[in-house]
Amino acid sequence: MYMSHLECPKCGAKHNPHKLNQVCPDCSAPLLVRYDMDKVKANFKKEQLVSRKPDLWRYRELLPLVDEKNKVSLGEGMTPLLSLDKLSKKLGIELYLKDEGIIPSGTFKSRGAAVGVSRAKELGVKALAMPTNGNAGASWAIYCAKADIDAYIVMPVDAPSITRNECAIAGAKLFLVNGLISDAGKIVGRAVAKHGWMDASTLKEPYRIEGKKTMGLEIAEQLDWQVPDVILYPTGGGVGLIGIYKAFRELQEIGWIGDKMPRLVAVQATGCAPIVKAWEEKKTESEFWNNASTVAFGITVPKALGDFLVLDAIYQTEGCAIAITDEELLKDQAELAATEGTFVCPEGAANYTATKKLLASGWIKPNEKVVMLNTGTGLKYPDTVKVTVPVLQPADDILG
Amino acid sequence: MYMSHLECPKCGAKHNPHKLNQVCPDCSAPLLVRYDMDKVKANFKKEQLVSRKPDLWRYRELLPLVDEKNKVSLGEGMTPLLSLDKLSKKLGIELYLKDEGIIPSGTFKSRGAAVGVSRAKELGVKALAMPTNGNAGASWAIYCAKADIDAYIVMPVDAPSITRNECAIAGAKLFLVNGLISDAGKIVGRAVAKHGWMDASTLKEPYRIEGKKTMGLEIAEQLDWQVPDVILYPTGGGVGLIGIYKAFRELQEIGWIGDKMPRLVAVQATGCAPIVKAWEEKKTESEFWNNASTVAFGITVPKALGDFLVLDAIYQTEGCAIAITDEELLKDQAELAATEGTFVCPEGAANYTATKKLLASGWIKPNEKVVMLNTGTGLKYPDTVKVTVPVLQPADDILG
Repeated sequence: MYMSHLECPKCGAKHNPHKLNQVCPDCSAPLLVRYDMDKVKANFKKEQLVSRKPDLWRYRELLPLVDEKNKVSLGEGMTPLLSLDKLSKKLGIELYLKDEGIIPSGTFKSRGAAVGVSRAKELGVKALAMPTNGNAGASWAIYCAKADIDAYIVMPVDAPSITRNECAIAGAKLFLVNGLISDAGKIVGRAVAKHGWMDASTLKEPYRIEGKKTMGLEIAEQLDWQVPDVILYPTGGGVGLIGIYKAFRELQEIGWIGDKMPRLVAVQATGCAPIVKAWEEKKTESEFWNNASTVAFGITVPKALGDFLVLDAIYQTEGCAIAITDEELLKDQAELAATEGTFVCPEGAANYTATKKLLASGWIKPNEKVVMLNTGTGLKYPDTVKVTVPVLQPADDILG
Repeated sequence: MYMSHLECPKCGAKHNPHKLNQVCPDCSAPLLVRYDMDKVKANFKKEQLVSRKPDLWRYRELLPLVDEKNKVSLGEGMTPLLSLDKLSKKLGIELYLKDEGIIPSGTFKSRGAAVGVSRAKELGVKALAMPTNGNAGASWAIYCAKADIDAYIVMPVDAPSITRNECAIAGAKLFLVNGLISDAGKIVGRAVAKHGWMDASTLKEPYRIEGKKTMGLEIAEQLDWQVPDVILYPTGGGVGLIGIYKAFRELQEIGWIGDKMPRLVAVQATGCAPIVKAWEEKKTESEFWNNASTVAFGITVPKALGDFLVLDAIYQTEGCAIAITDEELLKDQAELAATEGTFVCPEGAANYTATKKLLASGWIKPNEKVVMLNTGTGLKYPDTVKVTVPVLQPADDILG
């Protein structure tokens, strides 16, 4: 275990990782986990990975778990990096899909939950609460069930209904709110203050980001440590993008990759695009997005606590931010499925529209290596696919 | 490539694997793929697996694909084998869950589809048709999309509705039937005869079973080539169980495991239990089950084409067959989720009830190593979880 301390990216203060921390007590910014990178570099070699299990714990030297016995795992990680051969040929680029649908609960949220809940268990947490757009709540509910931690989950009434089932069957205490995730967040804020529960809201605890970081580590390993030119990420709270940025920086620190960084692209929906607006205005923080609404429900986050980290990652990597309409992303969800057989979630589909637009504008260049993150399986969004299908009687024939 | 021929398990006839085959033309039995096992044994070593990707193609020496370029893959295989620590302790056995929910389309059917569609592509197939209880159709639809093969899918109107979405978005030609999978099968039978399409019905082509066989290969590898005492399998068409049996026999032939075989258990629902009835009556074939009905929709198969192979696998391994009520399996689905964090499908949950019953009866003994196959994710069955959840206004508080 090489975790050395927690660091505030705003004021630089260091905090003890062996007690329960939420945000920086001085400036309320999210805390980041830091490691003794000299020791990691000396003791962690690429060759060690060969014999390790294909899950995210294979990178344990860059993860915050102190004692293996506290690991709460459902087999998460090392999701496929699919080469989209037909679309690559069509577009004239090398196009990959990192498919986070193939993971417990069907979304990348399980990476954050696996590491976050493991650390909560390690620190003796008995109850936690969180607001969610559905998928994070579902993931934390199942990992909390395994860890015997009480989970209080608050989600908008419009969140994908299957995520209610997941929370309920895992025994979480579930509440719906007539509002957005920001409203759920306020309810959770009052509840944790009153009841003394851990606050597992996005970036209000330091470990979720470490779990999501493993997406970046896996992409690098799966491409044999060749850094791709561009990575596109559907951005709500932005933890995935922040995590991927942190992963590549850490890989540079231990010398596993060179100076090249991937250009990181935050993809949002036109109905909720605070990061895109801030990037277009060259700002370092976003403003609250009023009347947020999109079918890509997971990215309906009007104001992310880590917005400044997302924007920093974009600026540092010479990336960009782009917004997609619901109509465009639904059309491209269908094109991806019918062409490459991948049934991605609406959020993931937005990446594909973004790729085509950035290619058309010249921002992505011919033959570049482009990785799209599909954050979850389309199975969790049945309402985005319209089905009209003939019903036969047993004596009927196909095609008359 | 070590495939030598196709063999009829009823009449023993050998067939050429390099042309399109359906069932045995002489006796209509399913054909099994045979390999030159001496050559496999000489050229395939356990150590080679270490550096291979964590998908089912890592066992390529025991798979029928001739040319790698025909491989149609969405990253399927090497699903987690989860140690269920809390339930193991409670029951006094070593209990594992092989979680086939973590695979493209969320069910084990994708293994059969990956290998089946790859071989169809290799043999030049342009169109195929199949009856399905939903999940197999969804899997074949997505792999056919990637392979540019037209897929005609017929499923009961009662099949899980998400599987309609999958077929539709992947561009398959989908039809519902007012009846059971047996009715869908008759419609498909007429259609393939009329239109000359390949018939991809369960066991009417030889390669699906090879894909499903990899579940057995993975279990053996994940347990470090120690054969478990018992494997429980929710049994509809039974291809998974037949495949697992074939896998362990082939591992014996190449000397990777010893003489011990796992005792194979076919788990069915009391509403559709033709294999259980045949086993109880010590028969070698099953009879058509009238008025079949269960919430575990995937195993609503009144009469399986491979019933004699399923029963043979049970008899050869000193296994058994057991039927579970819907009420029991739904209760145990919830217990599994709330205890171990695994949201399994109803079919998978039936295994857990079966495990407890067989333990109570003394058929499973204390400390035995028991593997339950979860054939799919609970995400595909939203209606099996009843949710009643309070709705808050933004100003409301949790717990009043």
